[in-house]
Amino acid sequence: MGRVTERRKVIRIRDGAVSARPDTLVAEEPLEIRLNGKPLAITMRTPGDDFALAAGFLVSEGVLAEGDDLQSIVYCAGATVDGSNSYNVVDVRTAPGVVIPDITLERNVYTTSSCGLCGKASLDAVRTTARWPIADTPPVLVDPELLARLPDRLRAAQRVFDRTGGLHAAALFSETGELLDVREDVGRHNAVDKLIGRALQSGGLPLSRALLLVSGRASFELAQKAVMAGIPVLAAVSAPSSLAVDLATETGLTLVGFLRGSSMNVYAGEERVVLRTAAQA
Amino acid sequence: MGRVTERRKVIRIRDGAVSARPDTLVAEEPLEIRLNGKPLAITMRTPGDDFALAAGFLVSEGVLAEGDDLQSIVYCAGATVDGSNSYNVVDVRTAPGVVIPDITLERNVYTTSSCGLCGKASLDAVRTTARWPIADTPPVLVDPELLARLPDRLRAAQRVFDRTGGLHAAALFSETGELLDVREDVGRHNAVDKLIGRALQSGGLPLSRALLLVSGRASFELAQKAVMAGIPVLAAVSAPSSLAVDLATETGLTLVGFLRGSSMNVYAGEERVVLRTAAQA
Repeated sequence: MGRVTERRKVIRIRDGAVSARPDTLVAEEPLEIRLNGKPLAITMRTPGDDFALAAGFLVSEGVLAEGDDLQSIVYCAGATVDGSNSYNVVDVRTAPGVVIPDITLERNVYTTSSCGLCGKASLDAVRTTARWPIADTPPVLVDPELLARLPDRLRAAQRVFDRTGGLHAAALFSETGELLDVREDVGRHNAVDKLIGRALQSGGLPLSRALLLVSGRASFELAQKAVMAGIPVLAAVSAPSSLAVDLATETGLTLVGFLRGSSMNVYAGEERVVLRTAAQA
Repeated sequence: MGRVTERRKVIRIRDGAVSARPDTLVAEEPLEIRLNGKPLAITMRTPGDDFALAAGFLVSEGVLAEGDDLQSIVYCAGATVDGSNSYNVVDVRTAPGVVIPDITLERNVYTTSSCGLCGKASLDAVRTTARWPIADTPPVLVDPELLARLPDRLRAAQRVFDRTGGLHAAALFSETGELLDVREDVGRHNAVDKLIGRALQSGGLPLSRALLLVSGRASFELAQKAVMAGIPVLAAVSAPSSLAVDLATETGLTLVGFLRGSSMNVYAGEERVVLRTAAQA
């Protein structure tokens, strides 16, 4: 079974002084995700929570939406030279009746259009495959002061980062700011998939009252994952991309970026953020 | 034609004070890369240098190794609803005689093994497809003091980051520390592909005397790209993964991580780093 960290020799240079010592690195290994026996995607990931990663990945791709859609997930044994299980291949079996969308997964983007591929086609693909509309009734309302406290809580909950400095993190919070779950991975999309997969496995989808915080930037892909899990609020410590903002605007996702100290930018869905004018503040 | 940045409305919150204004975001759009007319991969990228991105991607995948391997790269026109060119699909034509490896590209990892996928299989795939061995004769030798100056030079050359805060950067330096090229992209693998593609187009491969600096972490994928272009030294501002270190060790790549101020860690290929003992320093 894979390890979350591995030890390697390192030569440290500090102001010209040289020393050799063992260092702790974040582990990275490929994971092949099969769907009903057929290879679908390979992702480089930090071992651990592999079943959740596979399940969450398939939520993002519109294959799974609730726990009942899932029949089983197993490590695919055998076929290594020595006959051992590499624990790097998982097969996800869907329950009878689950319709598999026609997905061509190449870097996690649907090839819905032929030569006219564009940002809009990517937005359309998410909108047509989303099985959980963002529908928080009554609407989730978050105070900027609550949002401002979340990055510190995420950092406090990151265990592996402290040892390796090499991990992205993602966390789910309740609308009152309670930490619900946190995952770390060498790939930030994987950290989000692990969160969503764990929610699927515990019957927690859609995550219609949760806030998703990511340690880095907000790309289209991360916004897509939030939308597919029915999450109403995505907050990122760094910048969003244009296409992430467009997807948030189209789907009603609240997108917060540059969440640092008491500062933040709201790029979409500002109706969920309790805004006070300067005079009221 | 795509833009590198786009403007969107943003609501800024600073210590409780709220203001609305336009903001500059890094542009993100899908790019479909076709090889001899056949769709091969889609990557979310920042528009610009698309031909270089496609060419560099195909160097990383072992399809292209020198300028003569490339016959043409064109934007694939038509097929949008209004008949316009989205400039998001490029077709790369290889020169007659170029052998196309049997690649199944899913998240940029070869599916060489069946059920026994493991880190070692990933290393083997790079080693068997690399057309440029890392062979710097005489060996490139870099002083830690030279390495320490590179991140500031990279940052000074980043133009879009200053406006958006949303970009990864990668740069090539000469062995004397001269900046040769710098690229920015919403995806760090794309920034490296653009560098390598531009080198291919100008007849500069293998980059056997160049140093590659990346603004973030050193993943397996980035180490793979360095190896495939024959680059002898990869330096990263943040942490490497275990598999990146293993690949560097196996292929003879010098891998430096946590390059910050006068501090750095050397994880592999330390024979290219001029090390002084503390007594000599």
